[in-house]
Amino acid sequence: MIKAGIIGSTGYAGAELVRILLAHKDVEIKWYGSRSYIDQKYASVYQNMFQLVEDVCRDDNMEQLADEVDVIFTATPQGLCASLVNEEILSKTKIIDLSADFRIKDVAVYEKWYQLEHKSPQYIEESVYGLCEINREKVRGARLVANPGCYPTCSTLSIYPLLKADLIDGNTIIIDAKSGTSGAGRGAKTDNLYCEVNENIKAYGVANHRHTPEIEEQLSYAAGYPITLNFTPHLVPMNRGILVTAYASLKKEVSEEEVRAVYNQYYEKERFVRVLENNVCPQTKWVEGSNYVDVNFKIDPRTRRIIMMGAMDNLVKGAAGQAVQNMNLMFGLDEAEGLLMPPMFP
Amino acid sequence: MIKAGIIGSTGYAGAELVRILLAHKDVEIKWYGSRSYIDQKYASVYQNMFQLVEDVCRDDNMEQLADEVDVIFTATPQGLCASLVNEEILSKTKIIDLSADFRIKDVAVYEKWYQLEHKSPQYIEESVYGLCEINREKVRGARLVANPGCYPTCSTLSIYPLLKADLIDGNTIIIDAKSGTSGAGRGAKTDNLYCEVNENIKAYGVANHRHTPEIEEQLSYAAGYPITLNFTPHLVPMNRGILVTAYASLKKEVSEEEVRAVYNQYYEKERFVRVLENNVCPQTKWVEGSNYVDVNFKIDPRTRRIIMMGAMDNLVKGAAGQAVQNMNLMFGLDEAEGLLMPPMFP
Amino acid sequence: MIKAGIIGSTGYAGAELVRILLAHKDVEIKWYGSRSYIDQKYASVYQNMFQLVEDVCRDDNMEQLADEVDVIFTATPQGLCASLVNEEILSKTKIIDLSADFRIKDVAVYEKWYQLEHKSPQYIEESVYGLCEINREKVRGARLVANPGCYPTCSTLSIYPLLKADLIDGNTIIIDAKSGTSGAGRGAKTDNLYCEVNENIKAYGVANHRHTPEIEEQLSYAAGYPITLNFTPHLVPMNRGILVTAYASLKKEVSEEEVRAVYNQYYEKERFVRVLENNVCPQTKWVEGSNYVDVNFKIDPRTRRIIMMGAMDNLVKGAAGQAVQNMNLMFGLDEAEGLLMPPMFP
Amino acid sequence: MIKAGIIGSTGYAGAELVRILLAHKDVEIKWYGSRSYIDQKYASVYQNMFQLVEDVCRDDNMEQLADEVDVIFTATPQGLCASLVNEEILSKTKIIDLSADFRIKDVAVYEKWYQLEHKSPQYIEESVYGLCEINREKVRGARLVANPGCYPTCSTLSIYPLLKADLIDGNTIIIDAKSGTSGAGRGAKTDNLYCEVNENIKAYGVANHRHTPEIEEQLSYAAGYPITLNFTPHLVPMNRGILVTAYASLKKEVSEEEVRAVYNQYYEKERFVRVLENNVCPQTKWVEGSNYVDVNFKIDPRTRRIIMMGAMDNLVKGAAGQAVQNMNLMFGLDEAEGLLMPPMFP
Repeated sequence: MIKAGIIGSTGYAGAELVRILLAHKDVEIKWYGSRSYIDQKYASVYQNMFQLVEDVCRDDNMEQLADEVDVIFTATPQGLCASLVNEEILSKTKIIDLSADFRIKDVAVYEKWYQLEHKSPQYIEESVYGLCEINREKVRGARLVANPGCYPTCSTLSIYPLLKADLIDGNTIIIDAKSGTSGAGRGAKTDNLYCEVNENIKAYGVANHRHTPEIEEQLSYAAGYPITLNFTPHLVPMNRGILVTAYASLKKEVSEEEVRAVYNQYYEKERFVRVLENNVCPQTKWVEGSNYVDVNFKIDPRTRRIIMMGAMDNLVKGAAGQAVQNMNLMFGLDEAEGLLMPPMFP
Repeated sequence: MIKAGIIGSTGYAGAELVRILLAHKDVEIKWYGSRSYIDQKYASVYQNMFQLVEDVCRDDNMEQLADEVDVIFTATPQGLCASLVNEEILSKTKIIDLSADFRIKDVAVYEKWYQLEHKSPQYIEESVYGLCEINREKVRGARLVANPGCYPTCSTLSIYPLLKADLIDGNTIIIDAKSGTSGAGRGAKTDNLYCEVNENIKAYGVANHRHTPEIEEQLSYAAGYPITLNFTPHLVPMNRGILVTAYASLKKEVSEEEVRAVYNQYYEKERFVRVLENNVCPQTKWVEGSNYVDVNFKIDPRTRRIIMMGAMDNLVKGAAGQAVQNMNLMFGLDEAEGLLMPPMFP
Repeated sequence: MIKAGIIGSTGYAGAELVRILLAHKDVEIKWYGSRSYIDQKYASVYQNMFQLVEDVCRDDNMEQLADEVDVIFTATPQGLCASLVNEEILSKTKIIDLSADFRIKDVAVYEKWYQLEHKSPQYIEESVYGLCEINREKVRGARLVANPGCYPTCSTLSIYPLLKADLIDGNTIIIDAKSGTSGAGRGAKTDNLYCEVNENIKAYGVANHRHTPEIEEQLSYAAGYPITLNFTPHLVPMNRGILVTAYASLKKEVSEEEVRAVYNQYYEKERFVRVLENNVCPQTKWVEGSNYVDVNFKIDPRTRRIIMMGAMDNLVKGAAGQAVQNMNLMFGLDEAEGLLMPPMFP
Repeated sequence: MIKAGIIGSTGYAGAELVRILLAHKDVEIKWYGSRSYIDQKYASVYQNMFQLVEDVCRDDNMEQLADEVDVIFTATPQGLCASLVNEEILSKTKIIDLSADFRIKDVAVYEKWYQLEHKSPQYIEESVYGLCEINREKVRGARLVANPGCYPTCSTLSIYPLLKADLIDGNTIIIDAKSGTSGAGRGAKTDNLYCEVNENIKAYGVANHRHTPEIEEQLSYAAGYPITLNFTPHLVPMNRGILVTAYASLKKEVSEEEVRAVYNQYYEKERFVRVLENNVCPQTKWVEGSNYVDVNFKIDPRTRRIIMMGAMDNLVKGAAGQAVQNMNLMFGLDEAEGLLMPPMFP
């Protein structure tokens, strides 16, 4: 059994890790970290876990954790993982960081967009960006995995193959993304109150959302040239789900079949990326609770643009599910272990 | 592997059966019945099953089904199962009927409340009311199980122990129930449109809802005397979940501890009934997607009444999950097989 | 023009007062009180009022307010109004208190249920309980009106006529109420976050909600004898609306027509109480944004109980609308002035 | 009093017309047209109008209507108005058509996108596109007004001034729009059921939505050259509201202040377009129930694009409110008469 510790287990992503790991046959959660609820029963914070989790919450002691577990998940705000990680810890345990600390290779870019000094820049190079569909082999050997952001996961998987195949112009990309409210976290803020979110939709972080450079970096790898793009997230009145609608100019005239072939080929062996059929638009509800990403596209011959779409559950493939997928790879398990629950509808 | 057939697989309860059975290690779905979608791919009706289910929908041929499968689930409107079942079918296969056809022992009561002639009254006596927590032993040997209604499951489990212990007066029981909209089915009716249900709550079926006699029958067994009660369901703007708030007069002065002891003792060995802690009210979200029923109560010394509360997912413990729980018992499997997924929150 | 000041104008009830008073032809809001947002533009807190309200928020100075306005609305937590009111203020201005401070005539009952010392018990007797349909004449002459609570308004109006007509036994009354989330206020609490409320329903304050004694007091007046009852509120995933489902035993056999006649007669001249037609259940959406209360009932001959139902908008008839209705009466205006906006659907 | 008739009064747009006109001091509704509910009480279809509307629904007799009313609103599917209108009718009454029949000047474009033969092409030229902020003077003199589509209203008002000022390249425009579900109408379709829409978001009509040519036509007028653009609508789980997020490349380097000056100047005297302050993103909830459109923008210096945003209530400014605004102009009333209700929040 893999022993796992979760720092930040009472945030929504942390709680989703608990849900997934409880049903994972090879893992045992040994540490429910939560600064805000130290010594309180985990199940009193998340009553869905009543009688399923008997543990109490514990402080963020990464040193001690490293002695007790095989893998640490940090589902915490930016900066925490980078401030705690060190060689001794990494020599004893693996870390999967759900924060942004190790996602961006250029520390200056990180520090500019996150307005934060990076406390462990020495580990940035070693860390692996854990988008399994792209970095599978590197993840297998990693000690430190940077679990991708929710928007970047959905955006990258929706666009990547077409850039790789050089079908679209990377600098014409516009990503208009829509997220459920769990992406905003469990902090008690007026903006996230039921009555403020319900029956409402808004854009936020327009032209300056922190996931922008992360998406640009990954897509630049695919394109082979540096990409600058527009990314606009929106808050949608639903708990879970991210929908990405991305636009780009086609570099040449292509048919629907040719584009579909590119997607199909790229994701042929992927178990969590589903290329939908002709004319079927991804919907977030169809992947809810699961690790799937549904992608599809539509060519607009009038404007010579292509509309690329992707849908996933932000807490699963966009956070906890992907973290477990990374863990599976790092420990030599079947990549899909514990992640094959079908989406729940309705 | 148990071979299963589902008649009515494209209703919400049928679709939930598919979701649960796909993850059940001992079952294989061999027949996706759906009159409305014959010859269409199941996954084109429920896109969440894209790439997970390759079958097409088939007609309601119970004779043929009986030859091909070990168990038939009928997730259909009232009357269908009763009109199709016969000795030959029952000699070849087991039936778990999710409709009301075999839930009520008195055929006259059934015919009055459902305004329907019962086509197979000869099987009413044999059939077992599949509320596992109460009829576990009978279910094991049954050929034909009447899967309980959603409201009756939640109501009965919330109240049963106190009647059994003779703590409450059965004829003072008032059940005020609230259900998510999936309980109304997938029929295209104006009343169930998003804009009509959203931001709205209403009572319906006041004083004449068909689940009333079913609840009364089960609670009468517990009490040992005939019970007549009030049952008022409400439609709530959410997909899933049933909350029952039930009221009854206490027969004598009892302490919170005594009542709790009664619940705890009655449900001591139950894996799907969770008696919550003191002062914690059940919430539907805490059991979403799972087979759990959370129950609790509060004594009001001012009125000498007790308020009994229960929450569950209407599509799982209230329909498909309970059906699988019954199937597990009928086939000698672990009762909880395939049903231990933790609730999903948020 | 009546000059009005609002203390607590940035809570949901205060903001609804602003919405209603802006459209009221005889009123001018002169003071937007809000401790939390002093010196900030009101429209920056409630962007719906952008360009409609140019004022900034001001502190809670009731003395100064009394000099400047004709009427003060206190849309604040319990205790504030009672701690500020005095003879000088009441000699200069009228007060409509939306908190509970002056709703309950027995100060001991208030102090017990609200766990608060009452700072101005000397004004309790003078104050008028502002349920216009019942205390219309008293309201006209009042200096200090206690605006009723949301649940008490809906509960009382649904039940009152039948008690007055002695058709039901007051001590068998059980009120099961359901409220939208705006009733919980705009405080930034985890429990009121979108993801915690959405797709969820729960009871709260079971057997000890503070609106219980207020309802009991009013219904006791109707009955002519002291009433003790059960009141259970529930939190529903919607912004606005209260639905009351109330149960009581009939004192004698009555027909549907007789009961309807009692309601119709009692509310014959009321402009904001609509007695619905036979078999039509009240729905909160049908009164949203308006000052109407829809009531109806159903007799259950099997249990000899009657189910009384009422629906209203908790922020309008349950708070701000009723406050304006009281104001209209106190200033000799048409009672319905500014309150005749039709409900908004969907 | 202006006598008004509504054909299609039981759709959501028709019902919103009823709500607005009931509160309009100069209008009397004389005809509640509804093919589906002929001879039924209007208030039995829309219970919010109980006791407010006593009329029964009537058939679609435009000839008779023309004799009885001063203005006819057609809130009906495409094709109906064009098939009924004739010279005699237009000589007796004014028509405001909420369908698309007279919005597009090029009949071939209409017939191609709507897959419908136009039955009255002779009136296309005469008809006025009723976007008051742009065609105010023409509307005043019109007999036949084509009330703009919901998406085109919000899109056009968000983008128009920048094209007029030649700040953006019209052929780089991408409009990503999000709409509440009332936009889908009241037809009983599975796709619009509560459980299918709730907790879900999807794009639809990708690259072929019928509002595309309407937007292109209006924006082409602004630009002075033909514009082809991408328009992608999305269905959002809320009742009301449209949010437009539009992208375009800037033609030259401009400052935030310069762009703001363009918007402010263009909308200086408009009472229903609110140009929000710096960094404030439009939210649909802030305009709910009102005739306002909130617009704002953000420059992205990294990509030299501008993001233009607009929010409005699809049933008010996007349908019924705008129709009444047009009516006010056509009858020489104050343009804002009956339309100044503040937005409702929450």
